[in-house]
Amino acid sequence: MDKLKSGSSAMEGHGAYNRHAKLPAGGGELATPFLERAAWRVEFDTSDRPVVVADYGSSQGKNSLAPMRAAISVLRERLGRDRPIVVYHEDRPTNDFNSLFEVLHADPGRYAKGDNRVYPCAIGRSFYENVLPPGSVDLGWCSYAAMWISKIPTLIPEHFYVQRSPPGVRAVFERQAVEDWRSFLSVRSLEMRRGARIVVAMPGADDNGESAFAPLMDDAKEVLAEMERERAISAEERERMVLGAWARRKRDLTEPFAGVDAFQSLIVEECETEALPDAAWVEFERDGDRRALAAKHAAFFRAVFAPSLAAALTRVSSGEAGAFEAFADRLQRGLRERRAANPAPIHSLVQVAVFAKTG
Amino acid sequence: MDKLKSGSSAMEGHGAYNRHAKLPAGGGELATPFLERAAWRVEFDTSDRPVVVADYGSSQGKNSLAPMRAAISVLRERLGRDRPIVVYHEDRPTNDFNSLFEVLHADPGRYAKGDNRVYPCAIGRSFYENVLPPGSVDLGWCSYAAMWISKIPTLIPEHFYVQRSPPGVRAVFERQAVEDWRSFLSVRSLEMRRGARIVVAMPGADDNGESAFAPLMDDAKEVLAEMERERAISAEERERMVLGAWARRKRDLTEPFAGVDAFQSLIVEECETEALPDAAWVEFERDGDRRALAAKHAAFFRAVFAPSLAAALTRVSSGEAGAFEAFADRLQRGLRERRAANPAPIHSLVQVAVFAKTG
Repeated sequence: MDKLKSGSSAMEGHGAYNRHAKLPAGGGELATPFLERAAWRVEFDTSDRPVVVADYGSSQGKNSLAPMRAAISVLRERLGRDRPIVVYHEDRPTNDFNSLFEVLHADPGRYAKGDNRVYPCAIGRSFYENVLPPGSVDLGWCSYAAMWISKIPTLIPEHFYVQRSPPGVRAVFERQAVEDWRSFLSVRSLEMRRGARIVVAMPGADDNGESAFAPLMDDAKEVLAEMERERAISAEERERMVLGAWARRKRDLTEPFAGVDAFQSLIVEECETEALPDAAWVEFERDGDRRALAAKHAAFFRAVFAPSLAAALTRVSSGEAGAFEAFADRLQRGLRERRAANPAPIHSLVQVAVFAKTG
Repeated sequence: MDKLKSGSSAMEGHGAYNRHAKLPAGGGELATPFLERAAWRVEFDTSDRPVVVADYGSSQGKNSLAPMRAAISVLRERLGRDRPIVVYHEDRPTNDFNSLFEVLHADPGRYAKGDNRVYPCAIGRSFYENVLPPGSVDLGWCSYAAMWISKIPTLIPEHFYVQRSPPGVRAVFERQAVEDWRSFLSVRSLEMRRGARIVVAMPGADDNGESAFAPLMDDAKEVLAEMERERAISAEERERMVLGAWARRKRDLTEPFAGVDAFQSLIVEECETEALPDAAWVEFERDGDRRALAAKHAAFFRAVFAPSLAAALTRVSSGEAGAFEAFADRLQRGLRERRAANPAPIHSLVQVAVFAKTG
């Protein structure tokens, strides 16, 4: 097995991400007003062609419903109720698209409800490639996805989380992240029409590069060490585990635009750091239920990060039935116990930026 | 539980349809020259907008690869290699889209290989509704899908297959099929641009309304009777089982066009009945391996029809783990034994029609 995988940002399937990714949902909620403003600012020509909205890194779709409803509501106000609106949900080919389509079709909050001129679609291709024709997108949305880098550039000694790695390793990851951000903006710009807008929201780092997720990652690292001692995983498997996520500082988002009028015909329209209080912690402060708090943190970790870690396991990559579940169950249980013993909030930062396509 | 379900045309998931639907693949192969001719005849304006190809009722995608390659090849010859081509694969929301995207991304025969101006997408909505914006489709394809009617209009006494039902029941199904065919053509026409073409292929009946699948259905009916005697299924469950498929005669396809210049701005460009020899039978004639023949027929039946029958089972509709597999395994085994004891070919007919959007 190649030790360095491509960036493996698969979320847990069977709708698990839909059920447990409340934290990304909160980040998306903070960014939704940016999306509404962007929808007001998109410049339309006089034709009656369908309007194109693209949701990059949709995962299983639940977290996209409210932002898409908000965007469509603005577009309807501007363009009337007859104008066709096509909404593309994009994610990697291994994404759980069955859960996505179930949500699009049957969720009580589905955005196409009562609007038969809205056409939802899906695309199974990495957003580091072009996924739509040149000049076709009016409004883009990318929430809690662009922190996943395109490939894992190096293994991380002693941990799986790059924010806890030596400076040399961090530097290698940062180079990849810088390159990926420029690639992401370039391919998006090519897909956008003139006058289009794209809103990107992602969990970020503070100005010193620190991320609020590090303590949760440390807990998971300790559970993995227990699992290695129990022989549930091997030392080699543990060494291969790497999360391909990079927490950007606010200035990293605007770096390609420094000293130039535009980067790939894009300009920065807004760029803000928002504080995202941990909703699970807020509930814990009210009810004091440390087990409920720990359960939420552990379920979140499992749905978002366990598949990336499990990709390092021989039994999982060879497709052994139940191998992922056994690994994830044990990891989740250990994490729940640790978090319950030492309750701590995950008060994170969200970087939100809006880019406009010019000229 | 409501006794009459909506037309339940789900194929077996986890890629089973991709592996075992060789017979529909053969029908699609017969219809591919019609698609190539249609691709030559699509009328394009002078703009460089993306060309839109729609694959209605794609299921898990494997059977769409060769026809889409053929269509794209013609379009490339006509329009050059830079013109963006968007391909939409449509099926019901419960379709196995995860298998579809795996095929689109990784199958050796994927049509986007080596052509970065081809953009595959998926849509999870019934083709009895509009699934794309008005006037947006250049070339449509619908292979082995339009025989599934939109809803089950009545139960069938003694059998699950309408071709084996009393005249009164057949008449009720036929009315539904006639109405559905008109609906299908109407919604497709609305989606098509002027000068667009759509090719529809489906397993058909001969001029007397007889279908070559009836003996296979009779075998399955006998196996279900055994299962009822074994109490593997209940009498009520058996009664609720209905296949919502209707085998059309050639003249049924052109019926909406009789005596009018055009139906919903569509005209019939071609309409043919093709004979589809049973490829499994051809192999059997060569190797005499009756068990291999029976295994192919039984696997085909399972992948295509078992999910529709299983929808009548309380344990399946309530989501009990393994309930579908237990039912389908037993049915497949019984069918294999019956077919091996009495080898018979399924030499079927395929109706292929091409419609052009005028005016």
